[in-house]
Amino acid sequence: ATVPSFFGNSTDYFKLLDQNENTLLIGARNAVYNITIDQLVELHGQRISWPSSDAHRELCTLKGKHDQDCQNYIRVYARVNANRIMICGTNSFKPLCRYYNVLPGNGSVVYDNNELEAQGRCPYNPQHNSTYVYTDGQLYSATVADFSGADALIYREPQRTEQFDSKQLNQPAFVSAIEYNGYVMFFYREVAMEYMNCGKAIYSRVSRVCKNDKGGPYPFQDKWTSFLKARLNCSIPGEYPFYFDELQATTNAISGTYGGMRNKIIYGIMTTPENAIGGSAVCAFSVEDIMEAFEGPFKAQRDIHSNWLQVPPSSVPEPRPGKCVDDSRTLPKALVNFVKTNNLMDNSVPSLHSRPVFTRVSLYYRLSAIAVDPQVKALDGNRYDVIFVGTNDGKVIKFVNILSANSSDDVRTVVISETQAFPPGTKINEMTISKKNAALIVISSGKIISLPLHNCNEHTFKTCRKCLDLQDPYCAWDDANRDCKPIEDVHASGASIDQFYQRLDGERIGEICRKYDHQEPTVHTYEDNDVYTRVDGSGAVEKPDKSFDQRNVLIVHSNHGTVSSVGPEDIDNEISMSSVEGDELANRIINTHQYHHKPGKFRDGVSSRYRVYFATGKNYTVICSWCG
Amino acid sequence: ATVPSFFGNSTDYFKLLDQNENTLLIGARNAVYNITIDQLVELHGQRISWPSSDAHRELCTLKGKHDQDCQNYIRVYARVNANRIMICGTNSFKPLCRYYNVLPGNGSVVYDNNELEAQGRCPYNPQHNSTYVYTDGQLYSATVADFSGADALIYREPQRTEQFDSKQLNQPAFVSAIEYNGYVMFFYREVAMEYMNCGKAIYSRVSRVCKNDKGGPYPFQDKWTSFLKARLNCSIPGEYPFYFDELQATTNAISGTYGGMRNKIIYGIMTTPENAIGGSAVCAFSVEDIMEAFEGPFKAQRDIHSNWLQVPPSSVPEPRPGKCVDDSRTLPKALVNFVKTNNLMDNSVPSLHSRPVFTRVSLYYRLSAIAVDPQVKALDGNRYDVIFVGTNDGKVIKFVNILSANSSDDVRTVVISETQAFPPGTKINEMTISKKNAALIVISSGKIISLPLHNCNEHTFKTCRKCLDLQDPYCAWDDANRDCKPIEDVHASGASIDQFYQRLDGERIGEICRKYDHQEPTVHTYEDNDVYTRVDGSGAVEKPDKSFDQRNVLIVHSNHGTVSSVGPEDIDNEISMSSVEGDELANRIINTHQYHHKPGKFRDGVSSRYRVYFATGKNYTVICSWCG
Repeated sequence: ATVPSFFGNSTDYFKLLDQNENTLLIGARNAVYNITIDQLVELHGQRISWPSSDAHRELCTLKGKHDQDCQNYIRVYARVNANRIMICGTNSFKPLCRYYNVLPGNGSVVYDNNELEAQGRCPYNPQHNSTYVYTDGQLYSATVADFSGADALIYREPQRTEQFDSKQLNQPAFVSAIEYNGYVMFFYREVAMEYMNCGKAIYSRVSRVCKNDKGGPYPFQDKWTSFLKARLNCSIPGEYPFYFDELQATTNAISGTYGGMRNKIIYGIMTTPENAIGGSAVCAFSVEDIMEAFEGPFKAQRDIHSNWLQVPPSSVPEPRPGKCVDDSRTLPKALVNFVKTNNLMDNSVPSLHSRPVFTRVSLYYRLSAIAVDPQVKALDGNRYDVIFVGTNDGKVIKFVNILSANSSDDVRTVVISETQAFPPGTKINEMTISKKNAALIVISSGKIISLPLHNCNEHTFKTCRKCLDLQDPYCAWDDANRDCKPIEDVHASGASIDQFYQRLDGERIGEICRKYDHQEPTVHTYEDNDVYTRVDGSGAVEKPDKSFDQRNVLIVHSNHGTVSSVGPEDIDNEISMSSVEGDELANRIINTHQYHHKPGKFRDGVSSRYRVYFATGKNYTVICSWCG
Repeated sequence: ATVPSFFGNSTDYFKLLDQNENTLLIGARNAVYNITIDQLVELHGQRISWPSSDAHRELCTLKGKHDQDCQNYIRVYARVNANRIMICGTNSFKPLCRYYNVLPGNGSVVYDNNELEAQGRCPYNPQHNSTYVYTDGQLYSATVADFSGADALIYREPQRTEQFDSKQLNQPAFVSAIEYNGYVMFFYREVAMEYMNCGKAIYSRVSRVCKNDKGGPYPFQDKWTSFLKARLNCSIPGEYPFYFDELQATTNAISGTYGGMRNKIIYGIMTTPENAIGGSAVCAFSVEDIMEAFEGPFKAQRDIHSNWLQVPPSSVPEPRPGKCVDDSRTLPKALVNFVKTNNLMDNSVPSLHSRPVFTRVSLYYRLSAIAVDPQVKALDGNRYDVIFVGTNDGKVIKFVNILSANSSDDVRTVVISETQAFPPGTKINEMTISKKNAALIVISSGKIISLPLHNCNEHTFKTCRKCLDLQDPYCAWDDANRDCKPIEDVHASGASIDQFYQRLDGERIGEICRKYDHQEPTVHTYEDNDVYTRVDGSGAVEKPDKSFDQRNVLIVHSNHGTVSSVGPEDIDNEISMSSVEGDELANRIINTHQYHHKPGKFRDGVSSRYRVYFATGKNYTVICSWCG
């Protein structure tokens, strides 16, 4: 019932900076922690401590910021080369970067006394929605460049977006950035200029700059000549499509086979506005579709009272605005001017399948984080993206679109599990997957925990029905050995797949497992309202587990509470059993209590009836696998 | 457990045409039913039968309509004068009106062989969202004037809205119409022209015409010169307001005191779009605010590529367009032309309190009908509108905004009850209140039932706590007589209100009722999962009811199921009791089973304990009011 965890304070504002096979680098308050993935323990001697100087902290306080914010939150990390790293921190609202040399051997780092201003590279406020990507020796950042947080920008020294130009960036909340094929793409949400006449709304965007953008001719030498943006369309189709308009998180680009075609896609979490009925969706966008939008028509407003309309193709100058060119400094001024004011594409980027792969409506939470284990090979050889989403209420939901491999226009999503990873009320900020440890790392502001990617090995699922009911591509039922096997073991074993079963669609499970019917446990789930509940359970006898010395075992799973007594109906002596109270990790991670009866009380193959009494608790699951 | 009901077929498309103290007139398939309100039985000899002629039915079938639609659904009723009525029906997609003479005496009617075309007065399709109001001897209708349903119009002979002019009416679904102060107002939803540049959306509207509109100068003699419309704004306030944009139903105008001021208001049900997450709201609009919007600036689009903007006041001609004038035929042509294309107001009509009085989010249903018992006088002398809303899933929700009397900007809504009036899946189309019978009449396509306005007299609420917990302005706890009394009895009795309690805010109830604590029944509600449930109930003895001949009574309330046995713990003989299985009217209407113990088994004032066993059912409520 305990999972690996790393606890800080909620004011640590943990941020995942980097990850390798064995460790995570976590940016935090005045420090970078180096944490092992398997047990989530900090590596001794590998911490980078970097508090703000007293002078900076005092200045920050003088400017009216709280003590808590007048700290150095490390937000940016870049591996400059094999021997050198750069990190940047908010440094008490005066962002700075530092270089460290990596020592050969144990990989510990030493500050090289090289410090530089990080304005435009690193946010002032640790909670600002900033992002960056480091590629080809350069940092592409999307953040704010001033103390007040008003001067949002996309920046790679020396080019930036126009300052205070709401047609380029309009109160953006940056989400992620990726490098792709000579471009850097940024994902964010912002106030939609083109919607202004219809009210006020936030739209999701992808924007793109060329890596070889050198700025324009005077006076544009410090400005992007290639900045374009397009709306991300995550909606339920219909005559009146329903939009999920506010991007909250994305994955990196994932390569895979979708609808029978090789493709590169990005999953994004999009939600309804804060003031609206709480709805969240996961949409997939193909990189091709994004690029196509950038090749399409532009959208512009002729004058302040005009509609936002498609720019006629005849009005678009040559070379095409936003296209990468050898030396952008030689571009005609008119073209640079065009792209400065006409940077919005008329077409939005459609989502793969033209609909979300997952939606969730709740009054109590929205989705806030996503991690994908890409292209997990299922028993049938098809590959599926196993998607984990986190909520701002501490939940992790795991699902698969079981049509993804073959269908390009239809979606059939199977929710495999929902786990309360953190106490309700805790927002999951980030998630990442470690294939080596088969672990999902779940990160909140002050806590990190590791969950297993699957539960095939849990006792609960060690029956044919339970194993197949998971509908989990990670798990297959081993008919020969009567075991729920992790799929990688199945593939690795080289055994014929004919001896295994997996039903992602949840169909025919009864038929497949019928032969186990008389051997499988009878399972009841009860709601208990603080009263005694009498349960009549019955089942068939399975062979007693030898390891329990021929004793019969009644296994009781409960989330919390007390099992008051267990005994066959004809036996008076009822024996008390207690379970741990208040297991916060609920759902999948449940306590297992094994009650060992005295030998002889249960008889092989002889049917009898039992009563089980419970008190004070909820949602008991009773598996009478050994009920006579 | 049975409520008065009147059953037809779902293809009757029941429509409430008129109502007096004792009867309802219901338009249906080929008939008008005259139904008593108290028992919902049809009055013999009062039915108006009017099937379509064979010729009309055949023509309808030839045009490709189903047999079911080739019938005469009566949709319009008007009391022309004391001796004459007019009714109109779809008449197999060829609408007709007929006049009937009302016989003195029993009020039965005789067809006077006077028939006229009803094009523009009555819909072709019985399910079309049409409405009308009959006032000053004239029928103001809002419907469609053609077989295909494309030619929507607002019509009073000979004036109509412009044909196929999407700036006047754009695929409207009409909801209701009321007469007010020289105007007729129509409430409806339609595709919002002014939103076209931002996508496609439906907005709610109120529009207005002058009753004395005589049409304009040539060529406008058959057109309204006074048609204006405004958006109805039912939204949750915020930087990004959340709109409920689709009007589904309204009440008539209600006069009352709201926020300390006399006002005339209309309640409307507004929902999110069909394809969106299901959300519904009830908003109140004051007639004053509606009129104010019509006095405000106009909104127009200069050309097809322009934004919809406020028309500068200097561009608005005199006399003010849409104002009622003595003879509209003498208006300047330019002014009539202005109002033809500039009929949308720039300001939308805000809702009272600037927010809904009730909202509900559900994946399974939306609100579809509303009825209000206006200005019910509560114990404290304040008057509250008791609001009943019906859902498209057969539910009736009753609530009160307990701040309405005194606050103009805040809302505190108390839900008093939720009743499953019809089987899930049945849409409630209309509701109306009969004060005389203290009944709520609930109308679906093929069924009508009558529910009590309140449940104060139900046994369940005959305790201090239960009575006050209702938070129902209709009910007060009579401290002197230990009874939950209907408020009209309290007011009528002339007794000092000091001996009564009512807590609409739900506060201090424990304190007020503490003195009854040891005398009040202990109530448990249990979930039963098809297993035996042991209940330990205990309570104090009250005096046995003399009418039961000194026998002790255990009263068991259950929705359905079987009570297997009841008996004191120390008595072995357990006695079986059965209740009616499957009561579909659930919630408030519950079966009461009274079990009479043999005298002597229970002893006054002697405390003892009981066990009650249940089987096969759900949600039992056990009141051990007589448990020893």
